[in-house]
Amino acid sequence: MSTLPKYFADYQARVSAELQRLLPRTEGPVERSMAYTALAPSKQVRAVLVLLCAELCRGSADRAVPAAAAIELVHASSLILDDLPSMDDAPLRRGRKANHLEFGEAIAILAAFGLLNLAYGTIARAYPADLASRLASLASDAVGPNGLIGGQALDLLATDHDIGFETLERIHRGKTGALFVAASTAGALIAGAAAEPIAALAAYAKNLGLAFQIVDDLLDVEGNPEETGKAIREDARKTTFVSFSGVEGARQLAAELCETADRALAPFGARADRLRELSAFVAARRQ
Amino acid sequence: MSTLPKYFADYQARVSAELQRLLPRTEGPVERSMAYTALAPSKQVRAVLVLLCAELCRGSADRAVPAAAAIELVHASSLILDDLPSMDDAPLRRGRKANHLEFGEAIAILAAFGLLNLAYGTIARAYPADLASRLASLASDAVGPNGLIGGQALDLLATDHDIGFETLERIHRGKTGALFVAASTAGALIAGAAAEPIAALAAYAKNLGLAFQIVDDLLDVEGNPEETGKAIREDARKTTFVSFSGVEGARQLAAELCETADRALAPFGARADRLRELSAFVAARRQ
Repeated sequence: MSTLPKYFADYQARVSAELQRLLPRTEGPVERSMAYTALAPSKQVRAVLVLLCAELCRGSADRAVPAAAAIELVHASSLILDDLPSMDDAPLRRGRKANHLEFGEAIAILAAFGLLNLAYGTIARAYPADLASRLASLASDAVGPNGLIGGQALDLLATDHDIGFETLERIHRGKTGALFVAASTAGALIAGAAAEPIAALAAYAKNLGLAFQIVDDLLDVEGNPEETGKAIREDARKTTFVSFSGVEGARQLAAELCETADRALAPFGARADRLRELSAFVAARRQ
Repeated sequence: MSTLPKYFADYQARVSAELQRLLPRTEGPVERSMAYTALAPSKQVRAVLVLLCAELCRGSADRAVPAAAAIELVHASSLILDDLPSMDDAPLRRGRKANHLEFGEAIAILAAFGLLNLAYGTIARAYPADLASRLASLASDAVGPNGLIGGQALDLLATDHDIGFETLERIHRGKTGALFVAASTAGALIAGAAAEPIAALAAYAKNLGLAFQIVDDLLDVEGNPEETGKAIREDARKTTFVSFSGVEGARQLAAELCETADRALAPFGARADRLRELSAFVAARRQ
């Protein structure tokens, strides 16, 4: 399927409502810049993953909504940074001008900072202390030098250089995989899951995240900017999964990773069908 | 007194040891960039304030060390952002080249992000959940649009514009005051203090922070870069306390704020003498 699973809309609506509550649009430039990216139309795959994993572990999706919003805030913050002139210098994001082109570079950087900060504030305020502390620790590992920030740094160093497949995989396990894994783990923790289902869902999320990134690379080559909301051929100076394996090879690799992801769901049986729908979407997505 | 109180060295050493533990220097460029600013020679006034407030509230300074380090990480992170070309475009900090001149702008931005993220991770890992959650919430308020980030945004908007005294005060209550207040509150919370001493110490810290900033403005005009570690006349495009009140008027205002700060310490009697030594230093400092 190349469109989002039907159940998505309801989950997205709950996350969007929470984001709207957390991000007033009427304040100063930093607040408006924060809202500009965090409230822009988006698939919110990471946030929905939090909710699905909470439900799969017999928890309440509603209780997982603040954590799902926090993960989306972290993600939005990383998008602002990615697009900066000193990083990918990208003009278009989520179908709009990049944040720094709308608000100026300084405000964009402060907004990115503000979104990360708000994610931590949201976690601290929304959950009982024990859970909040575990979620904050989880987020800090996913964002730090072994996660998002490390992946982005490796990515910068690799621009205009030839890199091996292993380095490419490390970049994307950091830039994309770490937050997918944090999303699945957050959902499971909120549901009070034990170590085994947490590990199974992390294996699912890790492979799903990598597949998601490979399809991003494909869409950079063959996507329609009106559908993806991003400029195409932005990655010409980078080694990507497509420059390694070609269009067909990359599509195949994404499909295989989604199969690997699905195998990790075996212990859950048919109860994990929504996650299977999600991986089928990721493997085939065109937006 | 224009030199740091004698007791400072011991407190600084404990904070520095914790920062060295938290910030390995041997990893990739982001880690090195984080360590470059966070481990650079610094007075660590905010961190020492955490420890002093913990002790004054009959808590253990050692127990407050991780929170003191976290406050220093947040502060270091804001210094990297302040110096960026899109913000103050400053060449020199803590006696060294600004972070972005040493590591490039992209790595500097990621390092600033990494330092804020590490502050939250440190809080989550170092304290029992109840306390960690309160400290994270406190930090999030101090860093957000009503604190550091909001003050920095107001400051940017004010560059090359005439502003009133009230706006100037709002800028510095955000940029400097908020983190000073968070430092005092963190120390008091760790010691298990009640609402009254917490409020008294917050009043002290708020006024001390503003005085600290006014003296920073003075040092920008009359300081010696070899002592301050910063280039002078960096603020020529800004309205400062000195451009408002002149050198003598600003020095006088700083002294009055330190007296106001000291009055908030009355309930503690002689036990608060170290804080009085600190405000005497701030009023007279030349570095």
